[in-house]
Amino acid sequence: MKKLKALILNCSLKPSNEKSNTDALLQDFIDVFEKKHVETETIRVVDYDVAFGVDDDMGNGDQWPVISDKIEQADILLVGTPVWLGEKSSVAKMVMERISGSGSKMNELGQPIYYNKVAGAVVTGNEDGAKHAARDILFSLGHYGFSLPPNPLSYWVGDAGPGPSYIEAEGNNNEFTKNNAQVASHNLVHLATILANHPIPTEGNVLD
Amino acid sequence: MKKLKALILNCSLKPSNEKSNTDALLQDFIDVFEKKHVETETIRVVDYDVAFGVDDDMGNGDQWPVISDKIEQADILLVGTPVWLGEKSSVAKMVMERISGSGSKMNELGQPIYYNKVAGAVVTGNEDGAKHAARDILFSLGHYGFSLPPNPLSYWVGDAGPGPSYIEAEGNNNEFTKNNAQVASHNLVHLATILANHPIPTEGNVLD
Amino acid sequence: MKKLKALILNCSLKPSNEKSNTDALLQDFIDVFEKKHVETETIRVVDYDVAFGVDDDMGNGDQWPVISDKIEQADILLVGTPVWLGEKSSVAKMVMERISGSGSKMNELGQPIYYNKVAGAVVTGNEDGAKHAARDILFSLGHYGFSLPPNPLSYWVGDAGPGPSYIEAEGNNNEFTKNNAQVASHNLVHLATILANHPIPTEGNVLD
Amino acid sequence: MKKLKALILNCSLKPSNEKSNTDALLQDFIDVFEKKHVETETIRVVDYDVAFGVDDDMGNGDQWPVISDKIEQADILLVGTPVWLGEKSSVAKMVMERISGSGSKMNELGQPIYYNKVAGAVVTGNEDGAKHAARDILFSLGHYGFSLPPNPLSYWVGDAGPGPSYIEAEGNNNEFTKNNAQVASHNLVHLATILANHPIPTEGNVLD
Repeated sequence: MKKLKALILNCSLKPSNEKSNTDALLQDFIDVFEKKHVETETIRVVDYDVAFGVDDDMGNGDQWPVISDKIEQADILLVGTPVWLGEKSSVAKMVMERISGSGSKMNELGQPIYYNKVAGAVVTGNEDGAKHAARDILFSLGHYGFSLPPNPLSYWVGDAGPGPSYIEAEGNNNEFTKNNAQVASHNLVHLATILANHPIPTEGNVLD
Repeated sequence: MKKLKALILNCSLKPSNEKSNTDALLQDFIDVFEKKHVETETIRVVDYDVAFGVDDDMGNGDQWPVISDKIEQADILLVGTPVWLGEKSSVAKMVMERISGSGSKMNELGQPIYYNKVAGAVVTGNEDGAKHAARDILFSLGHYGFSLPPNPLSYWVGDAGPGPSYIEAEGNNNEFTKNNAQVASHNLVHLATILANHPIPTEGNVLD
Repeated sequence: MKKLKALILNCSLKPSNEKSNTDALLQDFIDVFEKKHVETETIRVVDYDVAFGVDDDMGNGDQWPVISDKIEQADILLVGTPVWLGEKSSVAKMVMERISGSGSKMNELGQPIYYNKVAGAVVTGNEDGAKHAARDILFSLGHYGFSLPPNPLSYWVGDAGPGPSYIEAEGNNNEFTKNNAQVASHNLVHLATILANHPIPTEGNVLD
Repeated sequence: MKKLKALILNCSLKPSNEKSNTDALLQDFIDVFEKKHVETETIRVVDYDVAFGVDDDMGNGDQWPVISDKIEQADILLVGTPVWLGEKSSVAKMVMERISGSGSKMNELGQPIYYNKVAGAVVTGNEDGAKHAARDILFSLGHYGFSLPPNPLSYWVGDAGPGPSYIEAEGNNNEFTKNNAQVASHNLVHLATILANHPIPTEGNVLD
């Protein structure tokens, strides 16, 4: 059987020379992906010069095509985002807009190119907003044609108000977050494996 | 192979002696489910005396257990809701709260009872709000353990402002809505069939 | 000057013979309202037999009119809700639907009846979701014609995952939540006072 | 009395050498602001080199400080956004993140700098999502300290599915959208005028 590929997009506002709390929680997923022999690549989106827009390539040195090629090669797409004012980051929204730009591409069967790929989300913030962030991301990805396994999310936030973030707060000791990362990462691999062997038939979804 | 079962919960504010626009769009799904030999039952939730709460059975004549038994038997759960002030109905939210009440029940393998079931949503309104309504519903169901096929939604809304609803506006002529109903209904059956034959393995999701 | 009136609607799923965490945080607002000589009434909505629907009076013993009369008399409307699955309660959504049912009533100047009233929100939950809950409530009330003062919200949630709620967790010691309750309660009184003395002129908002 | 100032931020993904549907609806507000002698400036945010981040000035040529200075001078802030996948644009989210970066600045009384300013929103899209977009924007601005007048929003979207946008669809003939623009623009001026003359007192909102 072909080896599965996972692409992780960390939508932090900070480039990769700065520490990301979201990266710390993403590591739990990477560990499981590696254990399951999934080829995994992680990208800090702001390291790339991605343009605002909804076309596949906005030109003028737009580096989104580098990322979109990787999405097309991946079986699993995992989107990580910090929480700002109770929402996903602007970078995560920019990514969702750009993914929609390839929405008219089809696979060899005539289905949207994201069919038979699975998606999940990882969210960290110092307080409230993880579900609102994840809801927007997972809904968009489902709309584009990704399938979602059960429990496709792990998140950590502290209690109400300013406070330490995941790393400083030792969120990696939070049983709920840890368990969700185990469940979500395994279920992403499970559903990706199932769909690799038993893809969604074309009946009803390849429109004339 | 066992025959698949679909349960449709219409979360209209009106009982079934009144016409529901959401019912009209749900019919597109019922037609496909029947063509695919899926045993389908539709429930108008407010016909039942469902109590507010988050327990499996709130007592005092609470009729939620009648519905929750049907959910446990179903392979496909389709939730229909009207749009009110840009959101799903209060009845839809009540249903989400009650579904969470069975969240600690497990299947024979120790997974949450909603594993290997698939979910979708249908939304109608006279204007703006369908995606916000669907986002909340689909996220909750994914969190409870349902899997989501690609494009798990069909909706119809008119343009901004007061105006006719789906039936009067002949929303059934909207190509986008019609196509989405075809795609969503088939994909629900496709993924339910795949998971019936190739269920999600327990690795990583059955916690000690 | 006339004495201001505040109406507090606690949208807990539980009737008032059960303890409400949201009530505990609402008390901070009540204390300020009393200090500022605002006549305050608190209602546990589920104590009333409120029908689903969007009319002013759904008949058959519907008790919403008792509540809507109180809203019409109030200068300040404060809506309290618990968080369930990262959202406001179904009771809170039912209340929003019912408030819209009086949306076509006008004051003596021809403005929507909610003009010159101010609104705020209070949210408690054991974890994540307070802003999503508040966002829906405050947006709906603004749409209906309420004005919103700066910082119209106080909330408390614990960190990610199951855990104690406001009372048990001693959320009343959370500085952020306490300060927000002080700010929000005072600003509600401030803006209500300003609008009582200097109401919104009719230019542009009384349509022919 | 001092002349009021309005700042309009158009959060289109496209720079100002391309036509913006949102601009077309914003014009209704500009007309009223001019009629009411409000000094109005409109900015297409992507014309500026705004950095991702949550500091007041991210350095390296970040042009946000040019915009944030204008916000500090304004009495009325109107945020316009297109709808992408049922949400506000990534540019609008970037603006919200950057506004929060000045959140600790205080006015001469010790209140957050946005006190006594009012905010509104304008949304256009070819279909569904305007309320979700507005909800996020208005909630964030209220959280930062802006006051919201009644009916602080005008939006236009077409019916479900792909289709023409505001200009091509002649959304300017939509009575609901037109009326909302009249109401919102006047109410923004009304409340800004009221607060200019009768500012929010400091009691309870200037914390030690």
